[in-house]
Amino acid sequence: MLEELRQAVWAANLELPRRGLVTYTWGNVSGIDRDRGLVVIKPSGVDYDALKPENLVVVDLDGNRVEGDLNPSSDTATHLILYKEFPTLGGVVHTHSPNAVAWAQAGEDIPCYGTTHADYFYGSIPCARCLSKTEIDGDYEGNTGRVIVEIFRKRNINPVHVPGVICAGHGPFTWGNNPAQAVYHSVVLEEVARMAILTRQVCPSAHVAPQAMLDKHFLRKHGPNAYYGQR
Amino acid sequence: MLEELRQAVWAANLELPRRGLVTYTWGNVSGIDRDRGLVVIKPSGVDYDALKPENLVVVDLDGNRVEGDLNPSSDTATHLILYKEFPTLGGVVHTHSPNAVAWAQAGEDIPCYGTTHADYFYGSIPCARCLSKTEIDGDYEGNTGRVIVEIFRKRNINPVHVPGVICAGHGPFTWGNNPAQAVYHSVVLEEVARMAILTRQVCPSAHVAPQAMLDKHFLRKHGPNAYYGQR
Amino acid sequence: MLEELRQAVWAANLELPRRGLVTYTWGNVSGIDRDRGLVVIKPSGVDYDALKPENLVVVDLDGNRVEGDLNPSSDTATHLILYKEFPTLGGVVHTHSPNAVAWAQAGEDIPCYGTTHADYFYGSIPCARCLSKTEIDGDYEGNTGRVIVEIFRKRNINPVHVPGVICAGHGPFTWGNNPAQAVYHSVVLEEVARMAILTRQVCPSAHVAPQAMLDKHFLRKHGPNAYYGQR
Amino acid sequence: MLEELRQAVWAANLELPRRGLVTYTWGNVSGIDRDRGLVVIKPSGVDYDALKPENLVVVDLDGNRVEGDLNPSSDTATHLILYKEFPTLGGVVHTHSPNAVAWAQAGEDIPCYGTTHADYFYGSIPCARCLSKTEIDGDYEGNTGRVIVEIFRKRNINPVHVPGVICAGHGPFTWGNNPAQAVYHSVVLEEVARMAILTRQVCPSAHVAPQAMLDKHFLRKHGPNAYYGQR
Repeated sequence: MLEELRQAVWAANLELPRRGLVTYTWGNVSGIDRDRGLVVIKPSGVDYDALKPENLVVVDLDGNRVEGDLNPSSDTATHLILYKEFPTLGGVVHTHSPNAVAWAQAGEDIPCYGTTHADYFYGSIPCARCLSKTEIDGDYEGNTGRVIVEIFRKRNINPVHVPGVICAGHGPFTWGNNPAQAVYHSVVLEEVARMAILTRQVCPSAHVAPQAMLDKHFLRKHGPNAYYGQR
Repeated sequence: MLEELRQAVWAANLELPRRGLVTYTWGNVSGIDRDRGLVVIKPSGVDYDALKPENLVVVDLDGNRVEGDLNPSSDTATHLILYKEFPTLGGVVHTHSPNAVAWAQAGEDIPCYGTTHADYFYGSIPCARCLSKTEIDGDYEGNTGRVIVEIFRKRNINPVHVPGVICAGHGPFTWGNNPAQAVYHSVVLEEVARMAILTRQVCPSAHVAPQAMLDKHFLRKHGPNAYYGQR
Repeated sequence: MLEELRQAVWAANLELPRRGLVTYTWGNVSGIDRDRGLVVIKPSGVDYDALKPENLVVVDLDGNRVEGDLNPSSDTATHLILYKEFPTLGGVVHTHSPNAVAWAQAGEDIPCYGTTHADYFYGSIPCARCLSKTEIDGDYEGNTGRVIVEIFRKRNINPVHVPGVICAGHGPFTWGNNPAQAVYHSVVLEEVARMAILTRQVCPSAHVAPQAMLDKHFLRKHGPNAYYGQR
Repeated sequence: MLEELRQAVWAANLELPRRGLVTYTWGNVSGIDRDRGLVVIKPSGVDYDALKPENLVVVDLDGNRVEGDLNPSSDTATHLILYKEFPTLGGVVHTHSPNAVAWAQAGEDIPCYGTTHADYFYGSIPCARCLSKTEIDGDYEGNTGRVIVEIFRKRNINPVHVPGVICAGHGPFTWGNNPAQAVYHSVVLEEVARMAILTRQVCPSAHVAPQAMLDKHFLRKHGPNAYYGQR
């Protein structure tokens, strides 16, 4: 069942350590089959070196295990909320990549300082608020998904235009049309987080890029008038 | 004698350069056989490239060499104090990994800024005080162990909950149930030290994570109610 | 046609990821045949891993595609302005290397803090101004080239003496006698950008190097009295 | 002639890129045969990849080329002053390693913040002053050596106890009993320069290590009472 998706999720998981985004098991990728309403996700705490496609776990959107002997990632409930609330998502990634974590731990949005950022994220990357004690003690991982959805709704951001978020005190989640693109956005988020820290080191009061530059760069890569690449 | 432990200590030592934690010979791992009261430790100043299991030195808890032709690590007395005072320890590691050293040289505890830290260290990683001139001129390496024990006792910290420390002006020591886990904690300590420096670069006045988040993350990985991984 | 140049541009493009200057497809190299007025450039959005010499695109100085099936780099118009306005250029490179981007995002010239910089860039590396909304909405990539030329003219800088620039909010462009030298200058620019950030971390008010040191270092490597290397 | 020294200097030169200390040709190692008064040094501007033992140049202490077809390193005169004024030196290294360059460009001594530093450098690593315009326009490379000697004399530092220096606006020189040890000290200097920058990031007003700690660490590795390693 879901052989193609399983292969895609497996390959996307292996891309995380290859791109230097994870230490040990600190990351996970999932993918969804929208027709069947099933999600394929990394098992919890399994080393990337030892991970095989058949180790992946299949769950339904309520979190019931449908296939696989292992426990799914402890972050599964967060992935499921994102899939349910953002119907355009085909893949979701969570990592603890260090520069993204730094912004999350500082509790600040990552400002859009330039074109590298604007090429993929149409505006600042929001920092979802800390959970309250009640939210933490309750359905912690589900609530992590809920505060992500909350900030996108509150600010009226389309998750296709800003394919990632950082969670205060925790780290980044990204997404995309499929697992591979979700990982691509994790790499970009970490790289722009790093560039933004370096930018503040040059000049602590650096300004964000002008809106016209955001429009130009995001829209030359996305939407009907895009002209980047081979189309 | 102690063949299994010798292999484990040897493999754990080699893991240090592989994980980028040591330059030249600036690190050492030991492991203890609690039944026999014997410790296996890296010899002093021997290159990791050239290190073989049979080069490791066996000492008793008073520091007498029981097996091996080479001198044990110059930090052996520190390891022995930790084994004697913290009876739950199975392995001890010392490195000069750069981000951990930076916090040690600044003389500050590493604050728990987020979940990456809370997953393994249940609260800030303490910075043990500088030794006095008398303590340095006397049993220096033993006294290094004693000020580590001192700060854990004074703050009433269980070394299982906070499996590492930084020593002011010097660098980190970590420990675990066995040599491999002690090295794992060295990798984590260096990574959270790095993330904490990056966090301050984003925002010099960043806040520590709320206690409820520490409780959640540490306890979902440790103790009777843990649900991370495959149990 | 242009076989030798095509090989040189291809090899120079592959050098970018090998030197750690690009993530994914975030860079491009071109080279010019001055006699024929033709430019060979990387196609847009093609992975470096998959890039073959025959994928390169040949355009004339007005941007008309003369050879090749793929779209040329979206930055082609910038390259062409530089070739037209700076007749000594044989190769041009654009990257998003992170330390150079940090200076660009901060909107500051990279100061000449020392000899590493002065060996290749005879004075500070200028930061070309942000484009206006009108310039962005119009011929964006051409106008990017025009503001580079503008700052070199305004400050009366010879592009041979300062073989690179950073564009505010965007990133670096470098050039040279040929594509390989243009890439060499990209590596140097990134390295001096990194050293300059580290210098400010040591001392935020660090001074630029004295003029006599610039003269000495640039002129021992360049011009009729050069004595560095094998001549 | 000097076959053994030639091999040692060649191997020490290759160690520089392997340890990540040089970009392109930005470094050089020499070694001296004190009995014959001859110095073997890297040729100027030759790639490390292409460097063969027979390419090395032999010069006498006045800088006359005694063997070899290539020009010696443009920094040869600096090396020769160091050999003449510091008779205990067997090898000399110059690099542009980035963290050491940052301190040089900031014009500050590298403070001894901890034991990693004190294990090899008995006190702060001095920053030799900028040359005057007259000194730069005259025998530049010789004068670079002279200001190094000047600061060691003025502060009464034994070059065996502090086996390296940074030159303001330029970069580091290190030395040792032989070429390999001189390279070892370059690696250490870069690493402690990096740790010192990270230390200031944690706490801009960090204190230097107490003198008793310097004494302990330097003297447990050096001199008649050393007990580190296998003796």
